[in-house]
Amino acid sequence: MSQQTTGRPGWFEAHLPILGWGRRYQTSWLSRDMVAGLTLWGLVVPEGMAYAGIAGLPPEAGLYTAMGGLIAYAVFGSSRQLVVVGTSATAALLAGTVVALKPEDAETYAAYAAALVLLVGVLFVLAGLAKLGFIAQFLSRPVMEGFVLGLAIFVAVGQLNKLFGVEKGEGNVPRKLWHVVTQLDEANWWSFAVGIAALAALFILPRISKALPGGLVVLAGGILLSAVLDLSGNHGVEVVGTLPSGLPSPGIPQVDAGVLWTLVPAAIGILLVSYSEALGVAGSLANKHGYDIDPNQELLALGAANLSSGSLGGLVAGGSMSSSAVNDGAKARSQVSGLSAAIFVVLTILFLTPIFKDLPEAVLAALIIHAVSHLMRVTSLVKVRRLAPAEFWMGILAFAGVLLIDVLEGLVIAMLASLLLVIYRSSRSSVTALGRLPGSEDLYTAMVRNPDAVPLDGVLIIRTDEPVYYANAVSNRDAVRDLVRSTVPPVTTVVFDPQTQHDLDFTTLEILTELLDWLEGRNIEVHLVATHSDLVAIAKRAGLIHLGGRVHVAPTLTDVIAQLKRNPPAETSAADS
Amino acid sequence: MSQQTTGRPGWFEAHLPILGWGRRYQTSWLSRDMVAGLTLWGLVVPEGMAYAGIAGLPPEAGLYTAMGGLIAYAVFGSSRQLVVVGTSATAALLAGTVVALKPEDAETYAAYAAALVLLVGVLFVLAGLAKLGFIAQFLSRPVMEGFVLGLAIFVAVGQLNKLFGVEKGEGNVPRKLWHVVTQLDEANWWSFAVGIAALAALFILPRISKALPGGLVVLAGGILLSAVLDLSGNHGVEVVGTLPSGLPSPGIPQVDAGVLWTLVPAAIGILLVSYSEALGVAGSLANKHGYDIDPNQELLALGAANLSSGSLGGLVAGGSMSSSAVNDGAKARSQVSGLSAAIFVVLTILFLTPIFKDLPEAVLAALIIHAVSHLMRVTSLVKVRRLAPAEFWMGILAFAGVLLIDVLEGLVIAMLASLLLVIYRSSRSSVTALGRLPGSEDLYTAMVRNPDAVPLDGVLIIRTDEPVYYANAVSNRDAVRDLVRSTVPPVTTVVFDPQTQHDLDFTTLEILTELLDWLEGRNIEVHLVATHSDLVAIAKRAGLIHLGGRVHVAPTLTDVIAQLKRNPPAETSAADS
Repeated sequence: MSQQTTGRPGWFEAHLPILGWGRRYQTSWLSRDMVAGLTLWGLVVPEGMAYAGIAGLPPEAGLYTAMGGLIAYAVFGSSRQLVVVGTSATAALLAGTVVALKPEDAETYAAYAAALVLLVGVLFVLAGLAKLGFIAQFLSRPVMEGFVLGLAIFVAVGQLNKLFGVEKGEGNVPRKLWHVVTQLDEANWWSFAVGIAALAALFILPRISKALPGGLVVLAGGILLSAVLDLSGNHGVEVVGTLPSGLPSPGIPQVDAGVLWTLVPAAIGILLVSYSEALGVAGSLANKHGYDIDPNQELLALGAANLSSGSLGGLVAGGSMSSSAVNDGAKARSQVSGLSAAIFVVLTILFLTPIFKDLPEAVLAALIIHAVSHLMRVTSLVKVRRLAPAEFWMGILAFAGVLLIDVLEGLVIAMLASLLLVIYRSSRSSVTALGRLPGSEDLYTAMVRNPDAVPLDGVLIIRTDEPVYYANAVSNRDAVRDLVRSTVPPVTTVVFDPQTQHDLDFTTLEILTELLDWLEGRNIEVHLVATHSDLVAIAKRAGLIHLGGRVHVAPTLTDVIAQLKRNPPAETSAADS
Repeated sequence: MSQQTTGRPGWFEAHLPILGWGRRYQTSWLSRDMVAGLTLWGLVVPEGMAYAGIAGLPPEAGLYTAMGGLIAYAVFGSSRQLVVVGTSATAALLAGTVVALKPEDAETYAAYAAALVLLVGVLFVLAGLAKLGFIAQFLSRPVMEGFVLGLAIFVAVGQLNKLFGVEKGEGNVPRKLWHVVTQLDEANWWSFAVGIAALAALFILPRISKALPGGLVVLAGGILLSAVLDLSGNHGVEVVGTLPSGLPSPGIPQVDAGVLWTLVPAAIGILLVSYSEALGVAGSLANKHGYDIDPNQELLALGAANLSSGSLGGLVAGGSMSSSAVNDGAKARSQVSGLSAAIFVVLTILFLTPIFKDLPEAVLAALIIHAVSHLMRVTSLVKVRRLAPAEFWMGILAFAGVLLIDVLEGLVIAMLASLLLVIYRSSRSSVTALGRLPGSEDLYTAMVRNPDAVPLDGVLIIRTDEPVYYANAVSNRDAVRDLVRSTVPPVTTVVFDPQTQHDLDFTTLEILTELLDWLEGRNIEVHLVATHSDLVAIAKRAGLIHLGGRVHVAPTLTDVIAQLKRNPPAETSAADS
């Protein structure tokens, strides 16, 4: 009992970081955090409403995401500056996934979307409990760069129809683009004018003053202009329309288990993208300010954010690169800035929704295009091409997948390519034959890299440069057999020097046994340099080493060589057999 | 032009192994291969018909699989003894996949099944062209053992209703078992008697004589008994009924692209299971007879077998463990045995199908239960438990997945578990700090393993035991930072000795740059032991090494130490800054 009680505070503090930093919070930080929170509010309200459009959900869903995500992350997150709200990448992935299920009406669409967000949340929490933080490293940077660049273009092109006030096109990016071009004679030029003006303002305002909340100014200007000129009534400009006011009540959507199951693969993909992005942003902010983030705790925090957002009918919540940069730029010291932004968002939902009625859709389109323009980092792909040409093509593969097929398919291609690369790297053999460096007494080195090194006649000294386990056991076995076959004069003794091997898994043991049978069939004597006592113990348990057994064990390579020089191999093997 | 022409024969012979062994074929082998082919026919006809039942297809589909698979593999395969026909594992996976699509009638079911088989064939060919032979190593043996044991029980329990002549149950294995038990009062005891007699004969006949084709005897006996007693008419025993005679005409099923796309994940799973099994069997036979198989050619051969089987309306074709063992036992020397078995199967389809009309379903159920009983290898799981307890639980996970959910879900669990394990192993750091062995002049060794080794004051010598690449770059960076932080007295110089590193990928370069920034921020000097000229070239191109740059390069660790002893680190870094 008492042990449990004393153990608890540590556990609580580890999994509820707010308890830790909340206790050390200095009231002098409050004003700065509040100002950062207000700045953040000016960004997440317009962006949230815009991203909801990418996800195919009504604008208020973006506000609910910010509310749920910011509060949950403030409680559970280990980063001080990361802002967890809706992001363009996951919004596009959400739309791709839900559309594929062909929901019959908007209500079913919303239910599927909420189910997906909750599923992402559950998977995040499970991954956190299982301490799978290492999965963030699964998608390589070139692949992510290609995917994100493709995604930015995908999202921007998807907004063009709103900018021109024409119907939405179908198909991949080139077809959508072509659709807009062919519809230009039916374009609403009022809508286009408002949208282009908004876009220009978004790019120009930050150059005038960094303190200016560009998104908010454009949002307010758009609403004002639209209301004063009655753009909707007089000129047929599409506007957002009436938003529900009042806070949403949390709930779980009614979706049957079969649908949930088909959502799992997409949810895993969304989790990987969202987590890689969040950890990348959180990591660089932590690096800058000299603290550490906990990858496993981040999984739990993103899980909580998505469970919270999903139950409110919001989008996937993830670490936003742009909002986090703004938050850090406004000198936020803690998640109090996120919490105050959340409070401003709640006030917006409660009191300000009626004023969004006249907001032109073209302004939201401009906000999205501006937001994703930051993701169009062609220069970094150029750098990849210069430094790692092979990886560049993997990035291009993901890029082309998003543009020419669809966003989810692009991600699947990126994941499969990464997976094959990891399996390929894991399955390579790392066997090298060692020879003595001339002039040295007992310095043995890889003969491939040191052409001067000389082998011992009839003795093959084999080093594995990487630990052998089930994924590379067969390749290593084949490599050893090839070495034995190709060595002249014929090999009578094989010495294994598994430098970095700490253990042996079952598959490796089985394959090692096959290899020993094969060597025995050729009357070849086997020595093992056993640097690790664990290794010897496992080999003994598997029956590979026993009294008069097939494998001779020595503590170092020097010992084995000395022994071989005393009893030359040819004689030994004759005596043994 | 002439270069292409001279290049071609080699390419043809490499990808059409029949050209190679066909040329060297000795007519004296023919009689033995024909006898083996006849023995094989006695096995693949009854088993093929039975496996078609597992797949939910009519019995003739099993014969078409054997015909297509055997001929295609004889042409393209690199194994001399492997028998490529329908297998129980892939038949069960096929049924699980197609049922999930809820086809409305038998015709649609057959079309989906054929589409899945063709898709598996296409993926096999693509994997072969991309030389992805290494993927066979992806599923570890304990995971495969657990999956196969679960599958054997799954398949056997799925046959019990036919044995007792009751309706098919729904749900997982325990529910299906319970369904049969509750239906026992409606059982057809004639059906049960025939089935049990067949099962007993299948287990007893091989003990009487190994030359006896047990399956064929039981098949003939079952048909004879059923026809003489008119079991169907007089006693309501379910029989196979009229089979179409005449060869099937090849064709491509009409299935829309959306359905094909949803089949891709299952097809990948089926490919992995089928390929792992085939390569395992082919590898051990090749080992026994002293020849090599080509993993990439095997992918192409299995692709051809499935394209051929799928276009005829057959099942997934894979390397069958039981049939290959029988083929080898009958002393087959080449794929001529497979080809002659195929000819006998063709004759069966042309002339013998009418006699299968009276075959009781219970006899097919007995054939299946007997076939999968060989897969119930509990002893090997016990061995796993003894030698590798942690892996044992991964096997049990796959086992439980198959029994408690479904066969496809069990496979997904097995694949995800393997995937996480590979990613986890790939993402670990392998950083060790080195110290000088007392008594030696310049022998540096891992201080963790040699407590006697002493560090150089202020100098941290870091070795990476495994190559650093994108999947483990972050872990290695964090491990280096932890070492630098925890070393007393404070570190002024870091020496990297990347023993087995041959190249640097883009992600690693980026993360290395971050690490160098961090070290520079602490005024730490960095030295690199550059064993590989490629490594230095890449680092130079990335701007990490340049005149007066941040990283000092030396060819060996001894050189670095000598240089450090001449210019002690503290002075050097002061002079540099």
